[in-house]
Amino acid sequence: MANRNLYLSNIPVEEALSKYLSALDVMPKFEIIPVEDSLDRVTRAAVYARFSSPLFNAAAMDGIAVNAKDTNGARESSPVTLKAGMDFKIVDTGDPVNAPYDAVIMAEDLIQIDGSEDVKIMEAVSSWQHIRPVGEDIVAGEMIIPGRHRIRPIDIGVLFSGGITCVEVFSKPKIAVFPTGTEIIDASSLKEGGHPKAGEIIESNTRMFEALIKQSGGEASRFAPVADNFEKLKDAVQKAAIEYDMVLINAGSSAGTEDFTVQVLREIGEVIVHGVAMKPGKPVILAKVNSKPVIGTPGYPVSAWLSYQTFASPVLSMFTGRREETLKKTEAVISRRIVSSLKHKEYVRITAGKVNGLLVASPLARGAGAAMSLVRADGFCVIDQRSEGIEAGEKAQIELYRSIEEIDRTLIVNGSHDLILDVIADMMSCGNGINLVSCHAGSMAGLLSLKRGECHIAPVHLLDEETGVYNISWIKKILNGMDVCLIKGVGRVQGLIIKKGNPLKIKTLVDLRRCRFINRQRGAGTRLLLDHLLKKEGIDSAEIDGYSREAATHMAAAAAVQSGGADAAMGIASAAKALDLDFIAMGEEEYDFAVRADSLNLKEIEIFIDTLKNRDFHEKLAELGHPLNAYTWNRSGEIVYINM
Amino acid sequence: MANRNLYLSNIPVEEALSKYLSALDVMPKFEIIPVEDSLDRVTRAAVYARFSSPLFNAAAMDGIAVNAKDTNGARESSPVTLKAGMDFKIVDTGDPVNAPYDAVIMAEDLIQIDGSEDVKIMEAVSSWQHIRPVGEDIVAGEMIIPGRHRIRPIDIGVLFSGGITCVEVFSKPKIAVFPTGTEIIDASSLKEGGHPKAGEIIESNTRMFEALIKQSGGEASRFAPVADNFEKLKDAVQKAAIEYDMVLINAGSSAGTEDFTVQVLREIGEVIVHGVAMKPGKPVILAKVNSKPVIGTPGYPVSAWLSYQTFASPVLSMFTGRREETLKKTEAVISRRIVSSLKHKEYVRITAGKVNGLLVASPLARGAGAAMSLVRADGFCVIDQRSEGIEAGEKAQIELYRSIEEIDRTLIVNGSHDLILDVIADMMSCGNGINLVSCHAGSMAGLLSLKRGECHIAPVHLLDEETGVYNISWIKKILNGMDVCLIKGVGRVQGLIIKKGNPLKIKTLVDLRRCRFINRQRGAGTRLLLDHLLKKEGIDSAEIDGYSREAATHMAAAAAVQSGGADAAMGIASAAKALDLDFIAMGEEEYDFAVRADSLNLKEIEIFIDTLKNRDFHEKLAELGHPLNAYTWNRSGEIVYINM
Repeated sequence: MANRNLYLSNIPVEEALSKYLSALDVMPKFEIIPVEDSLDRVTRAAVYARFSSPLFNAAAMDGIAVNAKDTNGARESSPVTLKAGMDFKIVDTGDPVNAPYDAVIMAEDLIQIDGSEDVKIMEAVSSWQHIRPVGEDIVAGEMIIPGRHRIRPIDIGVLFSGGITCVEVFSKPKIAVFPTGTEIIDASSLKEGGHPKAGEIIESNTRMFEALIKQSGGEASRFAPVADNFEKLKDAVQKAAIEYDMVLINAGSSAGTEDFTVQVLREIGEVIVHGVAMKPGKPVILAKVNSKPVIGTPGYPVSAWLSYQTFASPVLSMFTGRREETLKKTEAVISRRIVSSLKHKEYVRITAGKVNGLLVASPLARGAGAAMSLVRADGFCVIDQRSEGIEAGEKAQIELYRSIEEIDRTLIVNGSHDLILDVIADMMSCGNGINLVSCHAGSMAGLLSLKRGECHIAPVHLLDEETGVYNISWIKKILNGMDVCLIKGVGRVQGLIIKKGNPLKIKTLVDLRRCRFINRQRGAGTRLLLDHLLKKEGIDSAEIDGYSREAATHMAAAAAVQSGGADAAMGIASAAKALDLDFIAMGEEEYDFAVRADSLNLKEIEIFIDTLKNRDFHEKLAELGHPLNAYTWNRSGEIVYINM
Repeated sequence: MANRNLYLSNIPVEEALSKYLSALDVMPKFEIIPVEDSLDRVTRAAVYARFSSPLFNAAAMDGIAVNAKDTNGARESSPVTLKAGMDFKIVDTGDPVNAPYDAVIMAEDLIQIDGSEDVKIMEAVSSWQHIRPVGEDIVAGEMIIPGRHRIRPIDIGVLFSGGITCVEVFSKPKIAVFPTGTEIIDASSLKEGGHPKAGEIIESNTRMFEALIKQSGGEASRFAPVADNFEKLKDAVQKAAIEYDMVLINAGSSAGTEDFTVQVLREIGEVIVHGVAMKPGKPVILAKVNSKPVIGTPGYPVSAWLSYQTFASPVLSMFTGRREETLKKTEAVISRRIVSSLKHKEYVRITAGKVNGLLVASPLARGAGAAMSLVRADGFCVIDQRSEGIEAGEKAQIELYRSIEEIDRTLIVNGSHDLILDVIADMMSCGNGINLVSCHAGSMAGLLSLKRGECHIAPVHLLDEETGVYNISWIKKILNGMDVCLIKGVGRVQGLIIKKGNPLKIKTLVDLRRCRFINRQRGAGTRLLLDHLLKKEGIDSAEIDGYSREAATHMAAAAAVQSGGADAAMGIASAAKALDLDFIAMGEEEYDFAVRADSLNLKEIEIFIDTLKNRDFHEKLAELGHPLNAYTWNRSGEIVYINM
């Protein structure tokens, strides 16, 4: 435990960035490239037209070019005849009109003279009629686009029109990207269907960096993972700082590795900042080696992403010349309380959705390791360092990386988890471009979130112990007086998920007394079902080792069993099947969807209902449930109850 | 004039598109590619994780892994000692924690025992503390991303984390792009500094298409221009409709060429629509050949761009799987009356700017040939076919392709034209990312637009004939009672712009009686100056051939002289110099900037003033004016008058 860099600084984000940028001396490079290759590149200087457009006085209509003076006096009562080959010339739109001609008469205004090429006109014209004069669009010498302008398709068109074939732009910066850590393996070793060994981690952050750099207009060169070896890392970074414009080092997931990085950078260069008051992302390292920017990003995926966006991206844009695009800021109602420390600025991922016309932002998992929360998120709620958090129902500024239109196409689902939510989400995305975003808070929490207007759909499976009827009595109780419908979902089989081969010979709930169990979170229907069954059997929950250990989804519980972290879990048959585990059925239950009545006329909800009724969906249920008959779908999509 | 297709249909835009899309039978293709290459590609189907992440129970902190049971009873008054190599194992964040260990204690909570590897703890821990359980982020078998999802950098990271190395995506459609027209030449022939011959047009539209296709996720193959030859075009298109997924044909600028295209398509395929009720873009051709979509776009740049966006882009997205991004719609005050016909839907290019907090949209040039208007525009005001237009001051829906943030960084200039506006625009773009958008309406129109709140800055050079003082008395008169400042611009030399070598031996204004003149638009300061000078000399404007012919800028007037379309123009010395023409000085005038007093505190206006005072700017003025001493800059940037 020696040699640890426990003492990070805690500089505010903005201060860290400005300190770093002013310590750097970024000198962008420039290159001259063909205009046809210049999309999204940034001009070094203003570009001026070489030629005018049009380059000559051009006919703006199909017809004849004439000298306006020759038409003087023409009127309906005394037409003027124009002689072919002398008084006019036939022109198409775009043809040059030269002296002595100075006007164009449209073909529709001509009267053909039978047996002659000559024409008659019944109206005099003024000179320069229907002529696009030289330079009407662009005059040679005029500026087409200014300096530091990101080139768009229309710019390329106009540059060519102005006779420009090459343009000087900011060069693409070359960025070396190093994954580090002895436990890190490259995904390429898995291509033959291999499986990582115990303790190995598949490298993913620098793959994300490659894509981020490409998106920002840079060129990434990703190196093979560097082991936690001081000399190796030092050599690699020292070399890269000569050959490349910038270096990104992603620490393995261990703090030990990060220590190596900062020590290496201190030895071969200058560390400007180590440790920033942000969460996630605190242990970022901002350094320079051989006058080149070198950034060490933390190993957790969300930390890595955020430290790229916060520090690497602004540096990159000094090389590319691009203006950074800032996220769309807007105001939303925060659905759940967010507590934050005064020690840091916190970036809380949120999903956003319009529920009854109100933009509602719901915080997602906050762990730095929760990469899926970034995939699911619509944006961030950034909690200022000076703020202790936001209360539920308060309005706050959020930053969106999805457009409001995309968010309008989003249905937020919050409640009980089932694998079929993935299937529905996929079908709605493929077929209709609708995003179905699920938070798995459990049945009870889902109904409460529906009540607060934070979600569109709350999946529930809550047994009324007295009547044996599912869901309805709970909706009556929790959503008392609210206009809510219950849409029939699926019947599904619940039971015990146990290890393949059942080594502990578990048969009934009584056997849970002699194994390590993993439970679901409070308020989850599955946990309530377990409590109900335990009561019936007369088993005290205190007797079960792991009763208080919580997993948030059926899959997470099953994964704990699969990995050996637990011997048994209560859950749905399809989760056992998905992870190839054994299963002991305990009964069928009803998994339905509570929806506000006033959202039934939303197009997205209609498509949701259609999906539930869809034959393809039923086939997928059969497949997911085979051979355990894990699902039934007799009345899926029917509205079975209306609460008022 | 035979063989012309004058009879286009006039189908409404939406009807034309839906008719075309339903006649097509687009079958997208798919391919499996490495995840690292999948940025911005669209998934065919949902992608499910192969492995969980984390793949094992992992330490979430640096410290020691223990069995929670061994810590029972530890408290400050009676610490528990844990034996090295037996009761615990040292772990870094991310290291696996395996049985018998089931919890992690942070390094900070350990008490080292001198002379021993053992440690003491003062608090019992619960099992699974500081452990990231298997699958906390992703469980094997869970959906990572749905089908028809455009892959982002974060998705790439999570796909790798989930053990996915290849992904099935929509293939990039291959689009053949044909420029047509005998008068069209390829820009490559100009690479050695050549100049197009009389009547030749540099091909630019298909270069723009290449970039648009790339931006939309397709692969363009651009062919050399095809001459107006029926058989050649037929062969080329027939071959392309076999080898490519889609074909775009851009007509030359002549209607004759477009006729060829539609005739060819009728012979080798099926023309679904020819002629749409839109402006610009009416003569678009929507066809299919060999079941492949083939679109013929009109030759004018703005028509070409609009017909691509309206018809080609939706077809392309059926191949790429992308959802089309729609333009941001918002409401703005329309600054000038827009008259539109009931015959078509009209796409009026606009610039948008916030003036006194109000979003104001000003229509730009409406000609289909005005490609620069697309470069300058911030978006469109789309006038519905059923509408006859919009009155000045009315609110209307606009569609923006610049972000509101970019528009916030935009200064709108409307008034008198000078080449120095390009220089200022370039300096402000390079230095500060500020867009300076100029409309050249003339001094008078500029002041009126400032009065209506449509622009930030109105450049003026208006002589008071009685006092000989520039600008101030006109501001008093036109902006009576408004809080407006006059910022000193430059002194500049006005005079006659004449042909190189002065073949007509023009010496004074009297000589204008014997040559072809080109004037400036009504309300332009230069025209008023000319009128003033003519009056002084006793010359009747009716004696001047071309007095009523109008050019909108000094450069456009000079271009007319250069091209031989006129013998003389009144204008500034720098325009004569820019086009290498002769010049007869008639006197110095004052070119200043009128600005509303309340916008003086805008950051953008401050930077504008700083630019006027900047030494680099003065050097550029010297260069632009050399050797005519066309500019002086004694007090540039000073506020010389405040109107109240």
